[in-house]
Amino acid sequence: MIIKKHLILASRSPRRQLLLKQLGLKFDVVESGVDEDIDHIQIPIEHVTILSQRKAIAVGKQVEDGFVIGADTIVVLDGKILGKPEDENEAIEMLSLLSDRTHTVFTGFTILDRPSNKIYSDYETTDVTFRKIFIDEIKEYVRSGSPLDKAGAYGIQDDYGAVFVKKIDGCFYNVVGFPLTKFYLAIEKFQKELGLL
Amino acid sequence: MIIKKHLILASRSPRRQLLLKQLGLKFDVVESGVDEDIDHIQIPIEHVTILSQRKAIAVGKQVEDGFVIGADTIVVLDGKILGKPEDENEAIEMLSLLSDRTHTVFTGFTILDRPSNKIYSDYETTDVTFRKIFIDEIKEYVRSGSPLDKAGAYGIQDDYGAVFVKKIDGCFYNVVGFPLTKFYLAIEKFQKELGLL
Repeated sequence: MIIKKHLILASRSPRRQLLLKQLGLKFDVVESGVDEDIDHIQIPIEHVTILSQRKAIAVGKQVEDGFVIGADTIVVLDGKILGKPEDENEAIEMLSLLSDRTHTVFTGFTILDRPSNKIYSDYETTDVTFRKIFIDEIKEYVRSGSPLDKAGAYGIQDDYGAVFVKKIDGCFYNVVGFPLTKFYLAIEKFQKELGLL
Repeated sequence: MIIKKHLILASRSPRRQLLLKQLGLKFDVVESGVDEDIDHIQIPIEHVTILSQRKAIAVGKQVEDGFVIGADTIVVLDGKILGKPEDENEAIEMLSLLSDRTHTVFTGFTILDRPSNKIYSDYETTDVTFRKIFIDEIKEYVRSGSPLDKAGAYGIQDDYGAVFVKKIDGCFYNVVGFPLTKFYLAIEKFQKELGLL
C-alpha cells in the first residue's frame, strides 16, 4: 500500500491503532477531543459520518500537511443507537438488550487532506448476532470495567465479551472498530482523485 | 469462565494462544509434533476433527492430569482442501484461486480429559469472501513471508492479508484459528458431563 502523505489518526482507540498497524502503516495519533454526544442525530449513517468528519476536521486544524483519519463506531438495535454506556448499570442494560438478537455495527470514517481540506467519507455496516447470554455472565463482564469505553458495551477483540458473539455477517474489522478493507480501497481512490497516484 | 483442571494447548499457533488469553485463561503450550499431511482425508469435517484429536492425544501422553486442547484449521474452496502452502509459488497459486470468491474456513477442536481419556470434539465453519485481488498485491504479500505458515496462505488478523477479505459470514474467531464461542460453551458442557461442574 502506497500512502503519499503523512498519516494522522484522530482517535485514541487502541483497537483502531492496532488495525492500522496491521496494514503496515506508520502514523501519528492525535486525540480530537470532539464531544461524541450528538443524540439529536438518530440516523446511523449520518451519525457516524458526521462524527468521523468532526474528529478529522478538529485534528486537521493542527496539521499543515497530511491525511487525517477520523472514525466513529456505533451499535444499532431496532433502529436505536447504542453508544458508549455511561455507567455499569447502563452497560448491563445494553448487554441484556443485545442477548439472543442481531444488531448492526456502523463505522463511519473520513480522510481529510491537508492543506487542501478535501474530504473523503464512507461507512461500513456489519450484522452481529449474540447468543443468549445470562445475567451472571453480563455482570461478571461489566465488573471487569472493559465494556465502559465501548459502543454497545462490548469489545469483540480484546476481552471476555468475545464469547457473547455467535456470528457476524459482513466486514470482520468493522466490528473491531475500523473497516480496514474499505479504508484500504478508499485511500487508494482518494489519492488518485487528488492526483497523487 | 470456570475451568476445573489445568489447561494445555497442543498448538504452537500464536494466534490461538492470543485468542485463549482473550478469555482470561491460563494454560501451558506443548507442541504436538503431529504430521499434518493427511491428504487421504478429503472430507473437511473429518480432516479437522481427526487432526485436532491426534494433536490432543499426542500431547495427552505427556500429561498426567488436565484438559488438553487440540485444534486444526483448513480452508476449503470448491470442496478442495487448501492447507499451508509449501512454498511461495504455492502461496501465490492459492491466493489467486481465492480472489473474488467465497471459501469456507473449518476449524476442528478437541478437548481431551486426562487421566480419563474422555474426548469432546466439535468444529465450526465460517464463509469468507475475498475481493478481487491483483497479482502485484499477492506477490507483495507473499514476499513478506507471512502466508507460508497459514492455511489457505492468508492471515486475517495479523498482517497485510487482512485487506483481501471483503466479508465473513459466521464465527469471527474461527477465521483467526479458534472458534472461541463454541469452545467456551463446549468446555462448560464437557465439565458438566464429567461431573466437575
